[in-house]
Amino acid sequence: MVDVVTFGETMIRLAPPDFERLEQASTLKVTIGGSELTVAAGVCRLGLSAAWVSRLPDNPLGRMVRNKAREQGVDTSYIVWSDGDRMGLYFVEYGASPRASKVLYDRANSAISRIKPGEIDWARVLSDARLFHTSGITPALSDSAALVTEEALKTAKEVGCLVSYDLNYRAKLWSQEKAREVQTPFMNYVDILLTTEEDTKRVFGIVREDYKQVAVELAEKFGFKVVTITLRGNPSIWRNTWTAIAYADGTFYDDVTYEIEVVDRVGGGDNYTAGFLYGYLTEGLAKGVRYGNAFSALKQTSWGDLNWSTLEEVEAQLKGAGLRISR
Amino acid sequence: MVDVVTFGETMIRLAPPDFERLEQASTLKVTIGGSELTVAAGVCRLGLSAAWVSRLPDNPLGRMVRNKAREQGVDTSYIVWSDGDRMGLYFVEYGASPRASKVLYDRANSAISRIKPGEIDWARVLSDARLFHTSGITPALSDSAALVTEEALKTAKEVGCLVSYDLNYRAKLWSQEKAREVQTPFMNYVDILLTTEEDTKRVFGIVREDYKQVAVELAEKFGFKVVTITLRGNPSIWRNTWTAIAYADGTFYDDVTYEIEVVDRVGGGDNYTAGFLYGYLTEGLAKGVRYGNAFSALKQTSWGDLNWSTLEEVEAQLKGAGLRISR
Amino acid sequence: MVDVVTFGETMIRLAPPDFERLEQASTLKVTIGGSELTVAAGVCRLGLSAAWVSRLPDNPLGRMVRNKAREQGVDTSYIVWSDGDRMGLYFVEYGASPRASKVLYDRANSAISRIKPGEIDWARVLSDARLFHTSGITPALSDSAALVTEEALKTAKEVGCLVSYDLNYRAKLWSQEKAREVQTPFMNYVDILLTTEEDTKRVFGIVREDYKQVAVELAEKFGFKVVTITLRGNPSIWRNTWTAIAYADGTFYDDVTYEIEVVDRVGGGDNYTAGFLYGYLTEGLAKGVRYGNAFSALKQTSWGDLNWSTLEEVEAQLKGAGLRISR
Amino acid sequence: MVDVVTFGETMIRLAPPDFERLEQASTLKVTIGGSELTVAAGVCRLGLSAAWVSRLPDNPLGRMVRNKAREQGVDTSYIVWSDGDRMGLYFVEYGASPRASKVLYDRANSAISRIKPGEIDWARVLSDARLFHTSGITPALSDSAALVTEEALKTAKEVGCLVSYDLNYRAKLWSQEKAREVQTPFMNYVDILLTTEEDTKRVFGIVREDYKQVAVELAEKFGFKVVTITLRGNPSIWRNTWTAIAYADGTFYDDVTYEIEVVDRVGGGDNYTAGFLYGYLTEGLAKGVRYGNAFSALKQTSWGDLNWSTLEEVEAQLKGAGLRISR
Amino acid sequence: MVDVVTFGETMIRLAPPDFERLEQASTLKVTIGGSELTVAAGVCRLGLSAAWVSRLPDNPLGRMVRNKAREQGVDTSYIVWSDGDRMGLYFVEYGASPRASKVLYDRANSAISRIKPGEIDWARVLSDARLFHTSGITPALSDSAALVTEEALKTAKEVGCLVSYDLNYRAKLWSQEKAREVQTPFMNYVDILLTTEEDTKRVFGIVREDYKQVAVELAEKFGFKVVTITLRGNPSIWRNTWTAIAYADGTFYDDVTYEIEVVDRVGGGDNYTAGFLYGYLTEGLAKGVRYGNAFSALKQTSWGDLNWSTLEEVEAQLKGAGLRISR
Amino acid sequence: MVDVVTFGETMIRLAPPDFERLEQASTLKVTIGGSELTVAAGVCRLGLSAAWVSRLPDNPLGRMVRNKAREQGVDTSYIVWSDGDRMGLYFVEYGASPRASKVLYDRANSAISRIKPGEIDWARVLSDARLFHTSGITPALSDSAALVTEEALKTAKEVGCLVSYDLNYRAKLWSQEKAREVQTPFMNYVDILLTTEEDTKRVFGIVREDYKQVAVELAEKFGFKVVTITLRGNPSIWRNTWTAIAYADGTFYDDVTYEIEVVDRVGGGDNYTAGFLYGYLTEGLAKGVRYGNAFSALKQTSWGDLNWSTLEEVEAQLKGAGLRISR
Repeated sequence: MVDVVTFGETMIRLAPPDFERLEQASTLKVTIGGSELTVAAGVCRLGLSAAWVSRLPDNPLGRMVRNKAREQGVDTSYIVWSDGDRMGLYFVEYGASPRASKVLYDRANSAISRIKPGEIDWARVLSDARLFHTSGITPALSDSAALVTEEALKTAKEVGCLVSYDLNYRAKLWSQEKAREVQTPFMNYVDILLTTEEDTKRVFGIVREDYKQVAVELAEKFGFKVVTITLRGNPSIWRNTWTAIAYADGTFYDDVTYEIEVVDRVGGGDNYTAGFLYGYLTEGLAKGVRYGNAFSALKQTSWGDLNWSTLEEVEAQLKGAGLRISR
Repeated sequence: MVDVVTFGETMIRLAPPDFERLEQASTLKVTIGGSELTVAAGVCRLGLSAAWVSRLPDNPLGRMVRNKAREQGVDTSYIVWSDGDRMGLYFVEYGASPRASKVLYDRANSAISRIKPGEIDWARVLSDARLFHTSGITPALSDSAALVTEEALKTAKEVGCLVSYDLNYRAKLWSQEKAREVQTPFMNYVDILLTTEEDTKRVFGIVREDYKQVAVELAEKFGFKVVTITLRGNPSIWRNTWTAIAYADGTFYDDVTYEIEVVDRVGGGDNYTAGFLYGYLTEGLAKGVRYGNAFSALKQTSWGDLNWSTLEEVEAQLKGAGLRISR
Repeated sequence: MVDVVTFGETMIRLAPPDFERLEQASTLKVTIGGSELTVAAGVCRLGLSAAWVSRLPDNPLGRMVRNKAREQGVDTSYIVWSDGDRMGLYFVEYGASPRASKVLYDRANSAISRIKPGEIDWARVLSDARLFHTSGITPALSDSAALVTEEALKTAKEVGCLVSYDLNYRAKLWSQEKAREVQTPFMNYVDILLTTEEDTKRVFGIVREDYKQVAVELAEKFGFKVVTITLRGNPSIWRNTWTAIAYADGTFYDDVTYEIEVVDRVGGGDNYTAGFLYGYLTEGLAKGVRYGNAFSALKQTSWGDLNWSTLEEVEAQLKGAGLRISR
Repeated sequence: MVDVVTFGETMIRLAPPDFERLEQASTLKVTIGGSELTVAAGVCRLGLSAAWVSRLPDNPLGRMVRNKAREQGVDTSYIVWSDGDRMGLYFVEYGASPRASKVLYDRANSAISRIKPGEIDWARVLSDARLFHTSGITPALSDSAALVTEEALKTAKEVGCLVSYDLNYRAKLWSQEKAREVQTPFMNYVDILLTTEEDTKRVFGIVREDYKQVAVELAEKFGFKVVTITLRGNPSIWRNTWTAIAYADGTFYDDVTYEIEVVDRVGGGDNYTAGFLYGYLTEGLAKGVRYGNAFSALKQTSWGDLNWSTLEEVEAQLKGAGLRISR
Repeated sequence: MVDVVTFGETMIRLAPPDFERLEQASTLKVTIGGSELTVAAGVCRLGLSAAWVSRLPDNPLGRMVRNKAREQGVDTSYIVWSDGDRMGLYFVEYGASPRASKVLYDRANSAISRIKPGEIDWARVLSDARLFHTSGITPALSDSAALVTEEALKTAKEVGCLVSYDLNYRAKLWSQEKAREVQTPFMNYVDILLTTEEDTKRVFGIVREDYKQVAVELAEKFGFKVVTITLRGNPSIWRNTWTAIAYADGTFYDDVTYEIEVVDRVGGGDNYTAGFLYGYLTEGLAKGVRYGNAFSALKQTSWGDLNWSTLEEVEAQLKGAGLRISR
Repeated sequence: MVDVVTFGETMIRLAPPDFERLEQASTLKVTIGGSELTVAAGVCRLGLSAAWVSRLPDNPLGRMVRNKAREQGVDTSYIVWSDGDRMGLYFVEYGASPRASKVLYDRANSAISRIKPGEIDWARVLSDARLFHTSGITPALSDSAALVTEEALKTAKEVGCLVSYDLNYRAKLWSQEKAREVQTPFMNYVDILLTTEEDTKRVFGIVREDYKQVAVELAEKFGFKVVTITLRGNPSIWRNTWTAIAYADGTFYDDVTYEIEVVDRVGGGDNYTAGFLYGYLTEGLAKGVRYGNAFSALKQTSWGDLNWSTLEEVEAQLKGAGLRISR
């Protein structure tokens, strides 16, 4: 039995230190990043089990991604290995007001973008899973990746898995039109939609005065069991606010707003998803929102996409941990 | 003649860079840290003389601590060297709101925790000292360290040294009950108590509406010549406020409140003590509060427990140094 | 044809990482810095051409400066090479409130301070230049450097070059009296004065209630075509505000005020100059102020004197770039 | 089914860069190291499965060790977690002739040294394992660790597991007498002994003219199925030779001698064991010696105890890979 | 007038420090590398002028390559900028015996591989050049890159430029058959062939007992004015020998053999080419061999593809510089 | 009572990592270096007491030198502080065959070069010292530094101190003629001359077939009590041999030759002096040679001028420490 299975791309992530611009860098810090692995890793971090499905090149970079997924306790046994393809990369420049942080992708022709239907035996992968999760990045990678995404979603429904989906619109990968066209049919398979106001506007054209109305409209239009929306405020690059709401069966669930001194905001949404799924699968929606919220806030205070916080630290936040040094 | 003698543990301090969590670190920055050495070093930094008494293992880590104490100009000739014991260590994780900074101690069975009465010839050490300083961490290390602390305090009084004491309660070392029981008799030897509202509440159970009342109650209850209390405000992890007050003979002494952009808050209290003792011994209480306050504020803007600020920089703060670059 | 020629000193710049004090550093980050090269590099960065004139020792440090100027696209063919002199150096300590950032110069006897009149063939250098720029640092280096500055200014006027000049008063190089005495005659050659309220007060003794009045008084007193003044606000070391105004022919030009999370403020004024000259030479005064302002704000968010921002990023700021991550 | 189960201590390993002495270090590189985990990781690296059994403190350092074991693909599900104990540490100084490399242990009172009989359910752990491996370090940690080692060995025999054992004598942990007394009875459970001439001399007092005679004497005296001995030559610190032999049933197996430019020799023996077990379990003794030999030689050319070489690289060595750059 | 024009790919080069394997790296050192730019940079380093022609993506990585070419004094004004393509990358792992150094390319679909005939105005580029240089890597990048290579070679001959060509066979880019088929016609345009025994064997199938015979056969078969062959000996990874010979008009030119302690061998051949061209263009063949040889040997003692040695250092080698420290 | 007093310049030492050339460096490692402080530090390291006399600027760099001298246990109380002068600097590039290591000095106008006779109260400094040591670098710094050197030597003789002197000829500081002229009279004050064949040739023009004859000629010509000569062999940059001989009263003392894998050869001679003085002052000449030799060999295996070896490690070498890892 595995609690959560996720599917998507993970890239090698290269970032200059000390607010250097990429163009001036003489060293780069190396780690990995990718939405769906971040979710799987976060879920393991909090105590559930998870597997991550992807396609990787059989070279040191592909192995590095596999290793670092294993380091988090994620099951990597379903990864498909490719001989000739490349690893996707991305470069991160950390910002400071008024310069926003910036990502430069070098992910074209990555091994996973060349995945083909039939390469993953989804029935086997999902047969004993409680929940399948993917995001809008995966079908955006290539037409064949979109077909495999559909395979996975369809199989998940067939074997009785819950399905969660994060819209995660990436303008550098596809147009809003194509995103809508490809993903609208996917929504039939989705139980839990995780998104932002901005993404629902860009993908589904939903514009409402209030994020609560957005949640209601999404739930009604697509018949989702749960819609959950994260809300980031940007008074400055180094200081953000963060909270989330969820809507289900006519009820709203909300939480405190975190004041965050931002070390690295990349992965904020994915770690919300991880914390949310942990809470949701262990107790229910209200816990999902609160754990997702705290887990995401904590992640944004340390470096990298992945979250090194513990369940104990999340629960300390929920009880109102102070800002004094712990010693 | 030496101005200040301090007694206590110094540990090797290991900290990951760039807000990394310890669990993800691939390098650690190495320095040393310990309350009473920080006081001795700070006092030297400002122009007085100081000796630090401790017990160290005769290995590269013990020598590193000795070397770095000497680097600050501290007299290390009274250190007792041990053949088989270990060096205490601690790990620091720097925080960002809402995640507080965190210390992981690995100090059990350190050389100093195994110190025995009689190993230090306190009469010789203190014979020509003006002031002896220690803190509540030292007796918390072990029962025998508490006995040696008492030896030192008693001898200080006998030879006519002033005695200053910082309560420095550490919950990871002992209970509040034991801290009270062991330290209450020590207070008879103390002239100057340096503390925080929180520590006096935890050790002596003193709860008053106002920190000034706390100071008065302490002074009256234990007959201290001087009580001085530091006051930290935590609007966020990266932005603190800092000030201090002192009370003696019915009079209060206070100072401006510093707005601090916090690089490293560890050692804030100890550097207040150092600046306070410098001011107090060279001129008196009012100077003590102001120099302690500025010296501590400056220290919190650079990395490590030790303070690399100069007397000139402290005095520039007192004259209202601006925030423009100095060039 | 070259758009901008600048003349002045560039030093090797050595800075400890992570808010370390210089005295505690075990590594130093190496780059270069100097007002007039920063201007030339910035102008190239934005798409114009520039040459930088200086005198360098023929050793690895001199070559490093030449190389890094070339890296920016600056024409270095007019540099005079010296066999025996030294490279100027400076050390930067990054501050945090209440400790201001600090520069320690080690520039005495640098190769350029020993430049002699006649060493540069200014008529050739400036014959096809649109604008010549230097700052008050250059004549402050030595009496002979002041003579060469005058040579350059005079030739610029003779060959019909525009002349811009930044007062850039450096108290560590000369007194206010000497700065006034030497530079007052230079003002006759200057078309565009770039300065701050503080520098005009220190060099020309101009004190007015309002920076606009300062601009008017300067323009009237010296007959400048354009006066432009940068305005920095320092609510804290890590958070500054930044804007600028210009005055010409009875008209004021101003711009929005940037809220800056300061990574490295050194070079803020020089990058204003670069952006200003770019805007001014390509379109006119209003564009100069807006491009100078944005280019400077962006520079202050990354490490080093030089600006790695692009014209595209400057223009995104002018259109109101948000603070969300770009991906 | 798991191929190999190992049992023993892993420590956090801290090493100064660039041939610095520990006493002068300002940063330390962090990884993990421990004989039996290195074996398990090596075995996984080459394509078999492995589990590592140990006892770790539930803190960031304990989790780091668990994570890095998982990173290598090692099953960590049998680890016993302790609340209050500490992580063992060791410091490595890299040598250069004539200064040998040096290890400073700080492992006393580590969580595993406090393991108690009954804490591990060996019958469950070993029920479907092909081989159990441990080394003479484990019983040297404490008397109770020796008891647990015996439990494991006994159970291995009962459930029909092969047993391999590396003498690995550590003078800093116990005397030669105690090592002999404790381990002699263990030898009854051992099928495969991996060792060096030096260790057999120190532990069993065996001194023969020739390492082949040592192997024969060991095999005869204790009835081992296989004895394998590694042979390091030290013409200098940076240049070693490395080979190994095995003896079984009256036959000797040997291999080429590798000329090694030593980057990090720590883990050389353990990686021989890993390569040997891989070869032995997949084909037999001759393959064991050759794969162990090459895998160990490759490991010594990169940093850390763990081996990042691939099976493909090992096999390239066996086919006589040249020294030209591969591109 | 420009002395040398080169044409080819430059990649971002990423290398882990301290003999780490790529798979274990947490930081990577960043620089650039590519055969033909290395030649151009080397030629400038020694005092001639050079331009480098290529196609780069208009992003921070493309600009980094352009900047670093300019840093060396290379004229980059003929570079073609592409909007959508990517930068080629490669990863270097430094070896130690018996593990050879290794390069992992990630260069597919780089901007230059998509260059099309007609994009470069070769007549303009080469009109005032003395020599055009490229290598067998350039036509291997893609069919269209091969066409552009031919355009360049043809134009060079038409405008009266000397042509030098390095076979530089890369098995990862094309087969030996294709390399032969594509390049054989190119040889008609070549005056100076720079190569190794191994490459002539792989590309032209020339196998002779002696490298001198190889040179003669090449010269005769293709009518080259000059053939020059570099000869590396690999007693170990860290210790190589290096020399070269040239053949022209029936005469051989040789030189001393350098004993090299290898810091970074990548770029050894290209720096031979640079030194050779410098010597050849300033004086003739004998000087070419000697300067190429020394310049290459020096380069291999520091990090990166590019050569930071000076003409003065090359000439000191030729005069028999000793191994004592220079101070 | 102090055992050894030394007098001379110490500089800040800046070195690029990883065999980078200075011109390509983006970071520099910082430490200190200077012949006479290295001797004082080495003597303390081995257990004697030492003071170092110099003149330093009162800025962070001057304080860094003072701190690092104190870190080694050296008495710094006689240092003269200057307000306006600068700190001398030097840059080190580590070599690899055939490129020798290289030092770039930037020491002109350092604080100590401006020392004046009368600034040091030599009678007080030397009154209770056993030995005074300086080297030929000190009088080479400036004419006034030569006068102060003479003051010191004269006073040493007057108060009955032993005097040791290292010729340490530096061609970048003065000519051979001036070195001879200035230092010949100094030799009257010298008891122990430490030198190399090369330096005696350059300074005193002594050329003999054999270093032993050199020692005899020196002893006879100048009446030295002891002459000791160090002998370095350079088969390659990374591999040196090292030994020394001494001559006194008609007797020669020699020792084994060390094979050294050279990490950093700078300071090799000064650490010989330190070890020699330790041995000589504690037991006599034979011990001096052996301890000097081993202490120097050990120093050359770690980074920096200063020696972090211990007396215990020196004595292990003398007993024939092997090259196996110590654990």
